[in-house]
Amino acid sequence: MSVETSKRVTLETLQDKATRLRIDSVRSTTAAGSGHPTSCCSAAEIMSVLFYSVMRYDPRNPHNRDSDVFVLSKGHAAPILYAAWAEAGAFPRDKLLTLRKIDSDFEGHPTPRLPFVDVATGSLGQGLSVGAGMAIDAKQFENSDQRIYVLMGDGESAEGSLWEAAQWAALHRLNNLCAIMDINRLGQSQPTMLEYDLEIYRARWEAFGWQALLVDGHDIPDLLAAFDTAKRTTERPTILLARTLKGKGLIGIEGLEHWHGKALDKDTAAKVITELETHLTDAEWTPNIPPKRPNGSEATKSGKTARKPPYAIGGKDVATRRGFGDSLAALAKTDPRIVVLDGDVKNSTYTEEFENAAPNRFFQGYIAEQNIVGVAMGLAARGKVPFAALFFVTRAFDFIRMAAISHLNTKIVGTHCGVSIGEDGPSQMGLEDLAMMCAEPDFTVLYPADATSAWKATTLIAEHSGPCYLRLGRPKSPILYNPDEKFAIGECKVLRKSTKDRALVVAGGVTVFEALAAYEQLQKDAISIRVIDLFSVQPIDREELIASARAAGGVVITVEDHYEHGGLGDAVLSALAQESVRAYKLAVREIAHSGTAKELIEKFGISSGHIVNAVKSALQEVAATARH
Amino acid sequence: MSVETSKRVTLETLQDKATRLRIDSVRSTTAAGSGHPTSCCSAAEIMSVLFYSVMRYDPRNPHNRDSDVFVLSKGHAAPILYAAWAEAGAFPRDKLLTLRKIDSDFEGHPTPRLPFVDVATGSLGQGLSVGAGMAIDAKQFENSDQRIYVLMGDGESAEGSLWEAAQWAALHRLNNLCAIMDINRLGQSQPTMLEYDLEIYRARWEAFGWQALLVDGHDIPDLLAAFDTAKRTTERPTILLARTLKGKGLIGIEGLEHWHGKALDKDTAAKVITELETHLTDAEWTPNIPPKRPNGSEATKSGKTARKPPYAIGGKDVATRRGFGDSLAALAKTDPRIVVLDGDVKNSTYTEEFENAAPNRFFQGYIAEQNIVGVAMGLAARGKVPFAALFFVTRAFDFIRMAAISHLNTKIVGTHCGVSIGEDGPSQMGLEDLAMMCAEPDFTVLYPADATSAWKATTLIAEHSGPCYLRLGRPKSPILYNPDEKFAIGECKVLRKSTKDRALVVAGGVTVFEALAAYEQLQKDAISIRVIDLFSVQPIDREELIASARAAGGVVITVEDHYEHGGLGDAVLSALAQESVRAYKLAVREIAHSGTAKELIEKFGISSGHIVNAVKSALQEVAATARH
Repeated sequence: MSVETSKRVTLETLQDKATRLRIDSVRSTTAAGSGHPTSCCSAAEIMSVLFYSVMRYDPRNPHNRDSDVFVLSKGHAAPILYAAWAEAGAFPRDKLLTLRKIDSDFEGHPTPRLPFVDVATGSLGQGLSVGAGMAIDAKQFENSDQRIYVLMGDGESAEGSLWEAAQWAALHRLNNLCAIMDINRLGQSQPTMLEYDLEIYRARWEAFGWQALLVDGHDIPDLLAAFDTAKRTTERPTILLARTLKGKGLIGIEGLEHWHGKALDKDTAAKVITELETHLTDAEWTPNIPPKRPNGSEATKSGKTARKPPYAIGGKDVATRRGFGDSLAALAKTDPRIVVLDGDVKNSTYTEEFENAAPNRFFQGYIAEQNIVGVAMGLAARGKVPFAALFFVTRAFDFIRMAAISHLNTKIVGTHCGVSIGEDGPSQMGLEDLAMMCAEPDFTVLYPADATSAWKATTLIAEHSGPCYLRLGRPKSPILYNPDEKFAIGECKVLRKSTKDRALVVAGGVTVFEALAAYEQLQKDAISIRVIDLFSVQPIDREELIASARAAGGVVITVEDHYEHGGLGDAVLSALAQESVRAYKLAVREIAHSGTAKELIEKFGISSGHIVNAVKSALQEVAATARH
Repeated sequence: MSVETSKRVTLETLQDKATRLRIDSVRSTTAAGSGHPTSCCSAAEIMSVLFYSVMRYDPRNPHNRDSDVFVLSKGHAAPILYAAWAEAGAFPRDKLLTLRKIDSDFEGHPTPRLPFVDVATGSLGQGLSVGAGMAIDAKQFENSDQRIYVLMGDGESAEGSLWEAAQWAALHRLNNLCAIMDINRLGQSQPTMLEYDLEIYRARWEAFGWQALLVDGHDIPDLLAAFDTAKRTTERPTILLARTLKGKGLIGIEGLEHWHGKALDKDTAAKVITELETHLTDAEWTPNIPPKRPNGSEATKSGKTARKPPYAIGGKDVATRRGFGDSLAALAKTDPRIVVLDGDVKNSTYTEEFENAAPNRFFQGYIAEQNIVGVAMGLAARGKVPFAALFFVTRAFDFIRMAAISHLNTKIVGTHCGVSIGEDGPSQMGLEDLAMMCAEPDFTVLYPADATSAWKATTLIAEHSGPCYLRLGRPKSPILYNPDEKFAIGECKVLRKSTKDRALVVAGGVTVFEALAAYEQLQKDAISIRVIDLFSVQPIDREELIASARAAGGVVITVEDHYEHGGLGDAVLSALAQESVRAYKLAVREIAHSGTAKELIEKFGISSGHIVNAVKSALQEVAATARH
């Protein structure tokens, strides 16, 4: 294939294209007044060879299912990515001059606002995980000979996430994945750790199970031969370790330090471009568009599940994580888009139930949370609905942030949240997950209190298009809801309500049961409270919260198994910001400890007793204020 | 040294100690009813050899500056760590039976509540970075022959952060760092990725610059010889790749799957312990305590800086990140405890100023944020005051979380926060950093608006003991404060104030200038507003906020260059939760974009114009409510 392809264009054409990409990279960044032209120019021959010889794709239809895919992991080289697509005919070249403008989709780093960008990049060391997700999708589900190319910088090989991706891709023998490392020796502020020690790079990649090919990144025949070798390789992914010069082709700048992330001034740019233009030829090129596949990806359509959660009120206690696992297993049968990624905790998150139901769509990610989320991002970009169930969602926060920027249909699930996980102690407790997940404006965040609502929440987020987070708990708890209860994103549940309510208690997860116990205790003192199970933390049910807060006399108590800042309480306070309420947040206010769930709920101030006290003292304060 | 040491105890003694550690690990986890006895037992000989032959330390004084240091990266093996210290005489053995109890410091995973634990572990893949930080401290600053031992599990070698640490330790030729990987082949839910393929492990570690020694992890002479080789090695760190059996020594359990994280029931434990006891001998052992060093670490004492920030009101605009860099450079001269870590962005964070002032205390961490924070944790644990200045604090969140649990004196600095960074686009914008940092209950979070307050904030956090976060911005801004202005953690600044104030505007960083511009515009309409520069987001100046909100008629507008949830606005709302206020949050409510800082501040609703509109519509709403 590659040999045939490379015959279609001459070496002169490819060199000409590289020159054009350099010119456009300089021109657009100078017009913008900022950007990374030198990081583009080191990759000009790599991009030219990929875009105008190696890759099969349709410039006008980048989402053709069998097109080869390109991921720019070194996102700061965005201008050359844009230039490559313009040169291929995807859009008029003059659009390149809108680079970095507020009304342009040609942002400083690539985002999926552009049709040919699947996943936002710019936080380094993420592209290879994304590429691995796409590659396994092509191989395992699409039966496609689609190839995935990921261009990385040498600086980003310091990111550990790269090695997570490398080992995982090798484990899965992703020979349809080809990485290229643009080794231009210079980072932002100084030379990279390994500079031009390509043998060390080679040893590392080979030790991680890859075929590593050393190439001159500015030598077009060398690059063509290496891509050809990669294409013909079975059983292993390939990396081209391409020795390059930063700013290659820019006279007076080539190979120099202190040129990272600097646009050329207009005079320098004009001089550089004039020189580059002397190398231009006028070569013909037509894209190599893959044939339409006979069968589209019909298998990826969703079916609705008709099944119901199998738990009964008054029946056995069940953990919300179990409700999630049961629901996933049910979804395995009806929704072939769903895939599940595990971080060697499947027996705690209960994703092993999905593995049993659909082993082909279950991936063991081992203890490498960043790569797990990155692979999920790649799978989501290709139409799958990936669930990544983790203990340590914090570990993957930067990937999750990029998933939000990309608005990818990824489902993140945290199963070990709160002090109520118990004896394992603070290192194992997710107590800041709501803060991080709700911060992302694109994320839907659900927090079910019982296994039935966890079951339903799983179905809801599977069917919702967009990034979601599901907060689960470790302990078993009673069943609160009937199997027929309807749940919706953005809606809470009012569990206790009367016309005599004097305070509103908003809880979530384990604290719902504390709130219900507080209700019973307060009833004995003839104090009625309204109790809400928040369920949907984001979007929040502002309307119901306002109505309930008003009906309960404006006294609001929030109670959550989460640190004080950025959790359920803050979400409620924010929803009620314009209301005349007195609100009291009960939350974990210090570093937690080992102990039983019950002891910890008590110790950290979120038990029914604390709710009772908070309600009583709030009512006293209100009365005292009224007397003034 | 090692040969001499190993002569002090017999092989029989070491085997006896290993048996005792097994017994205690089983006994304590069975008493607790949970825990990871099998993960302890695979490491029993490793622990015995380290604690009773290889390591020099004083069981009664674990903080002796020249003692060898042990970091349990596989934190779930905590019971054997506790057993080892008990066996060494650090505390009475019966305390082991308080494992995982709420009133015990012997938590499920190690935390620095215990004097012999420097850094909390339990989130895997972090210990090696911490060890590297300690090792460079011993080597570079303490001139100590102290050695650092880090015990890791095989499962955690999937974490990319491990490879970040590995490359960094090799780069610095930390031959005083010795890692041990307990390769027991079994993860939590299934076998590890590499199982017993020790040659692949060896190739990876060697490619990353380490001496890798394959050993039988249950063979005491083999272990002793390997530790001896490690001690005599110059120029390179060493890893012992120790092949072990999970649950080694526990009859009926040894080497079996599905025994991760399970305590033995009482009967099984009794049987196992009875069998283990048949191997006990009654061996003598005394600790090998290193001599007191002639000179203590006097160089690590703090000096107060007398210098002042060099900026003048009305002078040139200066970025807060520059104020930070200038302040750090000044501190370099007065506080020898301060060290600085950079992620190849020193020319943007201005930490290069510190590098110029104190090159010996500046460490290039390259693009590996997790390891940078991990090394900082290790340095902090040894008494240094490390500053880690990053673009992507989100990348290191899980390490930061563990630094909070450890209450380590680490200073995290985010220099590229908010949409106001401009053209680089959303991937480069820290817009969730306040949510994550304020969530950690132990973190002090400062957010200076101008270079003078950034300069002072840097000094404040350098002198404050405990984890801190400093939020900085990219754009240049006017100088607001005189060099003599006093700042304090927990105090805000009231910038505009009159008796006629009708609304309070609380801002931070770049939005302070928007609030001041809004003040001017509103003055023209004869509307007075009170303006607060929040400065200290955590702890927050609740008293002043309440007083100002009351004085301004209970109308509060918050405005921040951060996502809506978990930021400055939520911190203010929380402080005012019991006040009768109407609050309006202006914040970034969607995924950001490239553009100029000014355009983006406008587009995302946090400009002076938006503040003016918010104040006016709030006042209209208040008037409308009053009319009802």
